[in-house]
Amino acid sequence: MKCIALLFVGLLSAFSCKAQNDSAVFASVFKEALTHGECYSRLGELCKTIGSRLSGSDNAEKAVAWGLNMLSSYHFDTVFTQPVMVPRWERSNTELLTLSSAVLYKKLKKGVASNYNCEAFEESTRVSRRFRLPAVALGGTVGTAGKLSASVVSVHTDAELDSLGKSGMLRGKMVLLNRAFPEENLNTFASYGACVSQRVWGASRCAVYGAAAVLVRSMSNRCDLHAHTGVMLYADSVRKIPAMAVATAVADMLDQLITEDPRMKITMELGCRTLPDRQSANVIAASTGTVYPAKIIAFGGHFDSWDQGEGAHDDGAGCMHAFEALRILKAIGYKPRHTLCCVWWMNEENGLRGATEYAAVASANRESHVAALESDRGGFTPRGFGVDTAILSRILPFKPLLEKYGIGTLENGGGGADIGPLKKYNPSTVLISFIPDSQRYFDVHHAETDVFENVNKRELELGAAAVAAMIYILDQELE
Amino acid sequence: MKCIALLFVGLLSAFSCKAQNDSAVFASVFKEALTHGECYSRLGELCKTIGSRLSGSDNAEKAVAWGLNMLSSYHFDTVFTQPVMVPRWERSNTELLTLSSAVLYKKLKKGVASNYNCEAFEESTRVSRRFRLPAVALGGTVGTAGKLSASVVSVHTDAELDSLGKSGMLRGKMVLLNRAFPEENLNTFASYGACVSQRVWGASRCAVYGAAAVLVRSMSNRCDLHAHTGVMLYADSVRKIPAMAVATAVADMLDQLITEDPRMKITMELGCRTLPDRQSANVIAASTGTVYPAKIIAFGGHFDSWDQGEGAHDDGAGCMHAFEALRILKAIGYKPRHTLCCVWWMNEENGLRGATEYAAVASANRESHVAALESDRGGFTPRGFGVDTAILSRILPFKPLLEKYGIGTLENGGGGADIGPLKKYNPSTVLISFIPDSQRYFDVHHAETDVFENVNKRELELGAAAVAAMIYILDQELE
Repeated sequence: MKCIALLFVGLLSAFSCKAQNDSAVFASVFKEALTHGECYSRLGELCKTIGSRLSGSDNAEKAVAWGLNMLSSYHFDTVFTQPVMVPRWERSNTELLTLSSAVLYKKLKKGVASNYNCEAFEESTRVSRRFRLPAVALGGTVGTAGKLSASVVSVHTDAELDSLGKSGMLRGKMVLLNRAFPEENLNTFASYGACVSQRVWGASRCAVYGAAAVLVRSMSNRCDLHAHTGVMLYADSVRKIPAMAVATAVADMLDQLITEDPRMKITMELGCRTLPDRQSANVIAASTGTVYPAKIIAFGGHFDSWDQGEGAHDDGAGCMHAFEALRILKAIGYKPRHTLCCVWWMNEENGLRGATEYAAVASANRESHVAALESDRGGFTPRGFGVDTAILSRILPFKPLLEKYGIGTLENGGGGADIGPLKKYNPSTVLISFIPDSQRYFDVHHAETDVFENVNKRELELGAAAVAAMIYILDQELE
Repeated sequence: MKCIALLFVGLLSAFSCKAQNDSAVFASVFKEALTHGECYSRLGELCKTIGSRLSGSDNAEKAVAWGLNMLSSYHFDTVFTQPVMVPRWERSNTELLTLSSAVLYKKLKKGVASNYNCEAFEESTRVSRRFRLPAVALGGTVGTAGKLSASVVSVHTDAELDSLGKSGMLRGKMVLLNRAFPEENLNTFASYGACVSQRVWGASRCAVYGAAAVLVRSMSNRCDLHAHTGVMLYADSVRKIPAMAVATAVADMLDQLITEDPRMKITMELGCRTLPDRQSANVIAASTGTVYPAKIIAFGGHFDSWDQGEGAHDDGAGCMHAFEALRILKAIGYKPRHTLCCVWWMNEENGLRGATEYAAVASANRESHVAALESDRGGFTPRGFGVDTAILSRILPFKPLLEKYGIGTLENGGGGADIGPLKKYNPSTVLISFIPDSQRYFDVHHAETDVFENVNKRELELGAAAVAAMIYILDQELE
């Protein structure tokens, strides 16, 4: 009996000692992030000296060189690039969406001026006798081969699209796919999920009904004059028609103007094109594990971005979270049990080639990835994590400690575009998603406003600390 | 036994029915806020048609008239203003802080240019042969009666101040009170609390040692070129010396420049003054209770602001939270048990006269305030509440439901400047503080950047929904 009691006391004190140690590591991690943080100034460097990093662009290659050099300066155990072929879609200087009617343009301007977010409209320029609307080509679209003028039909649901299409009303038209974000969702990613199919597949759906082109309402909660690009795909065996995103405030006004004058015509002129694939790279830095050097915990974001803005939140922030997490754990003297691997995946936005290659190489080399964490929801205040169902019960005991740092949200199920392929090769890889506050993400996502100025230093640092804290937990809990 | 079992089942189903109802009310509240929200457009109106609302200013009186009119348009049971005399401190057009040395100015500019947040410096103007520094008078300071030139001493701790003061080193000097926010605090209000005494009492402390004037490092986490004003007070029987806030990036650079050239002089010229008190008002709207009409649950923010920016987050947001909470509960058809009272207190920033008067009137009229909630931490994503220790145990059962909406943080202890006086008169009044995310608050607090453009629509709406949800809980739980 005495032995059992002693054993119990021993276990209890071991447990309490472990809890104290976790608590001390968390405190060190957050202090290091907030008082000696490097992620914010490094993100500033990336955004201001390089800027956007579209796959296959010269800028993306400059960024790879910058990343390799920057990471090397921190003397991690390993820093290298992993070659990968990426697609190369290019926007051209010819990118115009215009309205010819001065009367309708005046009405449109007046309409958007009543919205407090729309001060910028006066800046839009006049092109010969036509009036430019805030719009950008969607990534992957074909060009127009000259000017394409058509009257506009606005649709808000898939059912409406099919009904109009079947009755021949979309033939030769420019179709405005105008389904707005459902605002009642607390999580803005749920609203994005409810709308994004019209951006990705809208052109193909409309081409079936003989449409000439599509305009897609920008994927944003915010009503303003910034157009948001993003990937679009063409279904096989369907005519490829051009596609542009229009700003939400303009989409709302076009709806009204079409009702007033159904013959209203809009002209599109797009010179974009797709070039042959080009070699690029994933950028990787690692601290070798002291107990299981052959077992890897990978964490990262995607290094490519769209060509609007600077890819600051999407996903410069995620890359900096991962780099900073690796740096913080090294700086506080933590000796990882597993090999900790910060990965900046190339080409998440329009191909996923980097993630696919990373997983293929891991599989070919029989590398064991015990866990992978992705940060691709921006550099906002962290709230918690999506956790693979398989290990949720092992993470739940940390909830009180996580809550102390404002990151106690633990959702059942983790995943992400760039870490998904790893699980495909090895179903036992534990996937974790980093969850920051989602309210502002789609204000800037894929738009000219995704710039460094819209990233807050402390929010970014807290995100990095949250990632470091979760990597520490995984490193401690997993074999 | 059967009876007991039935009673148990009855209790259980009543409990479960109550929980279902709470859940349904929460869902309605958040849906109404996010899909039919009025707070964002109303805040836009307030900020863009009126702007800042310093106590005693014409703008503050315009705002009171606007508020009365706006609230009346929603047909609440009661809408009225409550007169209150407020102090009247005025900034003048003469407000200058300048450096005479072109060499040092060039160094200063070069130094701040290396900071990614400092693009705006080029805009600062040259005044005759002197170079203007980004600075603003602190609220309540005396003027300079002409130009005041002095060399500068920078101090970082109270101990350093006393040590230099006692050795006569501050005599005739301009003292730069340069204690920075301790960045390791997760809650930025804790950092503010650790520094704000140098703004409020710094001039008096330095005057004791014969200083000529003080410059106070802006109360901000952010290193940039925006100066943050705020209240300063003079201790009795101490000479009144003028005080200005300087931007954090400039405070950092002045520290360096003083080391390089201790004789460096700075010139201050301030024409501000204090005028006689003026009549202003609290603005109040209420929905009468159906069970306890004489028992009040008050909730609100302060309607006055500093004269920099537009008082958007501080505290237009808090006022809009309260108005919107009242509107939401009415819109979803909720019949309150207690009288729900939205209060916009005047003069929180430099006098607290509105809150003092509100509590005095409540006491004189023997009104029963069962609870009071204050929102004065900006319009950022809500995280939870500070809850009066007396009722924390009654709020804790709601934690799972609150967590579903991201507002599960429940801190022990509630309070606030504007609701404090109510508790003084009636210790049984339950005090609640609304807690939004604190990371960005001191980026804009009391600065020219506290404008509507820096408020996010969904964050503001979620804050209003959170306040409405807590008012519902209080209305249900309290007698």
